[in-house]
Amino acid sequence: MPKTYILGGYQSDFARNWRKEEHNLRDVMAESVYGALDAVSMEPGDIDTAHVGNFAGELYSKQGQMGGFFAEISPDFGGLPTSRHEAACASGSISILMASAELEAERYGTALVLGVEQMKTVSPVEGGDFLGTAGWYELEAEGVELPFPKLFGRLGDVYDDRYGLDPAHLQRLAELNYENAQRNSAAQTRKWLGDVPSDLSEGKYVAPITGRLLLRDCSQITDGAAALILANEERAAEWAEARGIDLADVPTLQGWGHHTAALTFDEKISQAQGDEYVLPHTRRAITDAYDRAGIDGHADLDAIETHDCFTTSHYMAIDHFGITEPGKCYEAIEDGRIDFNGDIPMNPSGGLIGGGHPVGATGVRQALDAWKQVTGNAGDYQVEGASRAATLNIGGSGTTSVSLIIGR
Amino acid sequence: MPKTYILGGYQSDFARNWRKEEHNLRDVMAESVYGALDAVSMEPGDIDTAHVGNFAGELYSKQGQMGGFFAEISPDFGGLPTSRHEAACASGSISILMASAELEAERYGTALVLGVEQMKTVSPVEGGDFLGTAGWYELEAEGVELPFPKLFGRLGDVYDDRYGLDPAHLQRLAELNYENAQRNSAAQTRKWLGDVPSDLSEGKYVAPITGRLLLRDCSQITDGAAALILANEERAAEWAEARGIDLADVPTLQGWGHHTAALTFDEKISQAQGDEYVLPHTRRAITDAYDRAGIDGHADLDAIETHDCFTTSHYMAIDHFGITEPGKCYEAIEDGRIDFNGDIPMNPSGGLIGGGHPVGATGVRQALDAWKQVTGNAGDYQVEGASRAATLNIGGSGTTSVSLIIGR
Repeated sequence: MPKTYILGGYQSDFARNWRKEEHNLRDVMAESVYGALDAVSMEPGDIDTAHVGNFAGELYSKQGQMGGFFAEISPDFGGLPTSRHEAACASGSISILMASAELEAERYGTALVLGVEQMKTVSPVEGGDFLGTAGWYELEAEGVELPFPKLFGRLGDVYDDRYGLDPAHLQRLAELNYENAQRNSAAQTRKWLGDVPSDLSEGKYVAPITGRLLLRDCSQITDGAAALILANEERAAEWAEARGIDLADVPTLQGWGHHTAALTFDEKISQAQGDEYVLPHTRRAITDAYDRAGIDGHADLDAIETHDCFTTSHYMAIDHFGITEPGKCYEAIEDGRIDFNGDIPMNPSGGLIGGGHPVGATGVRQALDAWKQVTGNAGDYQVEGASRAATLNIGGSGTTSVSLIIGR
Repeated sequence: MPKTYILGGYQSDFARNWRKEEHNLRDVMAESVYGALDAVSMEPGDIDTAHVGNFAGELYSKQGQMGGFFAEISPDFGGLPTSRHEAACASGSISILMASAELEAERYGTALVLGVEQMKTVSPVEGGDFLGTAGWYELEAEGVELPFPKLFGRLGDVYDDRYGLDPAHLQRLAELNYENAQRNSAAQTRKWLGDVPSDLSEGKYVAPITGRLLLRDCSQITDGAAALILANEERAAEWAEARGIDLADVPTLQGWGHHTAALTFDEKISQAQGDEYVLPHTRRAITDAYDRAGIDGHADLDAIETHDCFTTSHYMAIDHFGITEPGKCYEAIEDGRIDFNGDIPMNPSGGLIGGGHPVGATGVRQALDAWKQVTGNAGDYQVEGASRAATLNIGGSGTTSVSLIIGR
């Protein structure tokens, strides 16, 4: 297959509140688009196609058709083919898959992928209700307070029923993500805590949310955008040569996997009965990515950015990435393998719990962080010597799973 | 480029009201998916990837993440990679482009594309407000009654300013679409009228909507779904052989064009100043499709399915397809060239005004109608001997334009 190169990108500060700053979606898209173009020294006219990942702009901002903002940002984008893609919290990764499919199909030479979500426009209760449209709203969310914490609490219940689940292990995953976020200057929670372990054991962080989940187990809504610039081999080679960069040093999308399970949590778990994995299609997305990258598994990865919308989904990712046997995720937590200085660091950026979860931006942010790691651009959260990183981005209660492998 | 074959598809009856039938989105998606599978004698397990075109399900049905419905329809769809695409009223065509990009990139062998929109869930005023999210809601729709009729009325104003615009020509376009719809057993308006020309000249059909537009100038909201099954050459050849069909008789996507203009009508028209076409990016989408199909222009087409959300957008399409010189669309109306029995019939199906406009389904419905024409499956609205047909699908006030050319 033709290779998709990743030239660079941009992330907004996920601690911001755009409405308070009097910024609308156009403003924030403009900042991110120019931020990404500046990062790779390109101009609007260098971009051939643009893809927007966004979940529920119609609800949070009463706005669809976001591809139309490009030509509002600059007349130089006039005519640029654009589209918007949605698979709930996996919208960003789906956008990357669509952009890379267009490049591989030789339709275009360069692509800009922008993930964006403005969520701080409504009350937490209303925002939580909107998130219910990522499940089967009528059956799982209508009239239900905080439907998604409930659904991901149940993911913990499934682990507990099958294998047992010690709350201390979930607490450690919260700590890990908060700790890592302290090093990330774009992370939502970077200034929230002093001493992470003790702060997370007391006060508001242990307030019960629902079921087994406390506040510390949950990623927080926020406003955020992330952008990536992709290119096919010909354009990447031109770009690299003009900048004196060796093309071999430009990361590529080495592998990917994409599978969708049933929308409702009940049906999903029912269809997964008898499988050794709790979310078999999530596992398959990861193993497909391994296969396409031509690697054996997690031992060939230097870092993972995973979808910790809740500590329970982070817990699930550990065995689904093959880091432990199915159900034995706790082993990797206890032995520190997934810590920042461990063998296979998970979420060096702070992930969603530490970094923030602006839904449509998350998958793009993960891929950008993978790019940062393998190019040595991750600053204070750089994993030393990283050359290959993976992402896992989940939409709905484990409904859409996309895993990407980015490396040099 | 690898070819994308179009095996067949399904359209729901656009005269239906799903809520009154107590059908939810899952039910209707199931009907359309099985309708398409039955049409081509395939099973769920034969489908490799699925794409949903939908505009504003979050608003009309409080539902996103529609790709998750597949595994709710049948466990045999469990794991099927799915995604949803949005570009307002061009969402269906964008979904076809994404599906064909995946096939051309050799990611999958077969793809199901489902366009769907349930709009009869709210009052016309609220539904019209929701449509405002296809423009820049804050600037063009907030507090504005019927924002889209206003915007497309202004498209007529631009023609009037540049070239003059006789209301009789718009009336004739309304007649043409209503007349053609009488032959289409899935058209929304097929039973609405007796004698089309006289009925459309009186009563409710001439009620003023806004600006220059009367009720007869407007497509009507409705509920609808359409599905298409696509395949790469290898899978299409297997499929054709098993059914004793000559692969050369299976239509392909011969060409396509896709461009996006500015979101707001003002900025769009401002950026188009000096161009001989009112919507230059729409023109370019069509000429790109011609170029990719390797044809000279409309003379090589046997039929066109165009986006007549309003008579003004149908009027625009005439010169943008090159049927007349820019601004001289009226010539093709006066000489009957675009009539059902003319040289280049436009909207033999009845288009959006006659057939109905369930937003996310429209682009898929257009492509299905093109497929029907070139395979001799259009029944009472068959254009005799058609072998190549084009579509034009527009999202927003001329923001996203996609043109497809389907032929044998």
